[in-house]
Amino acid sequence: MEKIRAAIIGYGNIGRYTLEALLEAPDFEIAGVVRRDPTRRDDIPASIPVVASVDDLTQVDVAILATPTRQVEVHARELLAKGINTVDSFDIHTDIPRLRQSLNEVAHTYGTVAVIAAGWDPGSDSVVRTLLEAIAPEGLTYTNFGPGRSMGHTVAVKAIPGVHDALSVTIPLGTGIHRRMVYVELEPGHNLETVTKAIKTDPYFANDETHVIAVESVKALNDVGHGVNMTRKGVSGRTHNQLFQFDMRINNPALTAQVLVCVARASFRLQPGAYTMIEIPPIDLLPGDRDNWIGRLV
Amino acid sequence: MEKIRAAIIGYGNIGRYTLEALLEAPDFEIAGVVRRDPTRRDDIPASIPVVASVDDLTQVDVAILATPTRQVEVHARELLAKGINTVDSFDIHTDIPRLRQSLNEVAHTYGTVAVIAAGWDPGSDSVVRTLLEAIAPEGLTYTNFGPGRSMGHTVAVKAIPGVHDALSVTIPLGTGIHRRMVYVELEPGHNLETVTKAIKTDPYFANDETHVIAVESVKALNDVGHGVNMTRKGVSGRTHNQLFQFDMRINNPALTAQVLVCVARASFRLQPGAYTMIEIPPIDLLPGDRDNWIGRLV
Repeated sequence: MEKIRAAIIGYGNIGRYTLEALLEAPDFEIAGVVRRDPTRRDDIPASIPVVASVDDLTQVDVAILATPTRQVEVHARELLAKGINTVDSFDIHTDIPRLRQSLNEVAHTYGTVAVIAAGWDPGSDSVVRTLLEAIAPEGLTYTNFGPGRSMGHTVAVKAIPGVHDALSVTIPLGTGIHRRMVYVELEPGHNLETVTKAIKTDPYFANDETHVIAVESVKALNDVGHGVNMTRKGVSGRTHNQLFQFDMRINNPALTAQVLVCVARASFRLQPGAYTMIEIPPIDLLPGDRDNWIGRLV
Repeated sequence: MEKIRAAIIGYGNIGRYTLEALLEAPDFEIAGVVRRDPTRRDDIPASIPVVASVDDLTQVDVAILATPTRQVEVHARELLAKGINTVDSFDIHTDIPRLRQSLNEVAHTYGTVAVIAAGWDPGSDSVVRTLLEAIAPEGLTYTNFGPGRSMGHTVAVKAIPGVHDALSVTIPLGTGIHRRMVYVELEPGHNLETVTKAIKTDPYFANDETHVIAVESVKALNDVGHGVNMTRKGVSGRTHNQLFQFDMRINNPALTAQVLVCVARASFRLQPGAYTMIEIPPIDLLPGDRDNWIGRLV
């Protein structure tokens, strides 16, 4: 079997874990890493090219986008137009339908495939949410995140004057309600009371129970563990009180990277266009012989 | 939108709940119920035809097989050859690949679709197992069933001389190990000790912790509630200790029937052939506008 040649676009947290997931995948070869400064090799094995542009790599079948979410669209459109499939973990939930439509057009034009919003939420959680919605069509699903770091909230705190470094941790309180535990390293001459007021009135925090705590070192709190607890109570046919629960405690970038590798694989079984994970048969996420999986997993 | 016309084949427990699920589904019409004795209407609404053969119904798009598992193959082959899609909840795990191959041939010949093994296990559990295997490719998954009635074990006990009626309840002990609680109503002149010995040496029970209890009325214990707890601890990329759990407490026939209706719907989006649920995009299980679901669930 010929291996799928993948390029990693961006080499932050997700990029590093994607490299590991690709090295462990039996059906992939790494075409190379594309990053702004290709002289920085960090821990990338010597055999893997590090370049500034995907054009400097040979035979890229699929590009795994490990860039910030807001750069996904421009990179994906460019790569799809070069005849390269793309996968991303774009995570702005409300903007997913628009991104899908935008990439769908380019992918159709160039006969390529984009799989978007493929991390854990959006991503694998979306698959579970869809399954539960189908098998209990009336009812309520609650997605409870954490405990774990929220990127969006952390960035918002860092932008507040007087904050040197920050970490916002999401604590699940059930029924989709969350507490925000915000740890801040203050700049000299700034006081906690003023910073706390600024955080609590920020739109990211205004509607949630928020606690602000001053710490000496935010780096000392670093932990990429995260989690989710999803519950659905609903009705199958006319039968009420059907109860479902999905729970995960995971290393966040490691799971995101693994999901990206799974959908990179699946992209070669799809017709040209852009897809979310709920539009992909789950078996296509797996490598190797399909009959064997059907015998083992069904 | 034209509605999908479904026939229900068999009218036991699953058939009754399938009728309810179809009545609640916005995109289905009930073509009729096919049962051995069509003069028995039970609780079937007067507007729905009850017949002895599917040939006596008009325009059947899909047949939902609510027959015993061992009768699925012969019914499905016959219906597929008549140009009717079929769905079933065939539940002999080890025989699924063979059934898939058998129905795949007929379906290809007649341009129809069969979705097999579509209940909750095999079925929706298989989808979750597949997703977890993909996103943590190394590791162990344990499927723990119950508490709830096991059909296979109950039938085995009923076949033992001296047993008038019986119920075998599966109790999960974790790591895929189960206890069997067997409730028996003895026939006059038989004693518990002999019956207990026969049960404990039966191949269905020989390897499990089994307790046999004599009761006055097995009917008084009737409860169709069941459950499952699936856990996976595994590795994403090179990151260990990724923890996943899926838990369900459900009315067994109601969930099975709802899943059957979901795959009956999905069958019209598939190319001719036979499929298990892990081969179907989860979004195809849902009725109505796809863009709306992508916006809401991803």
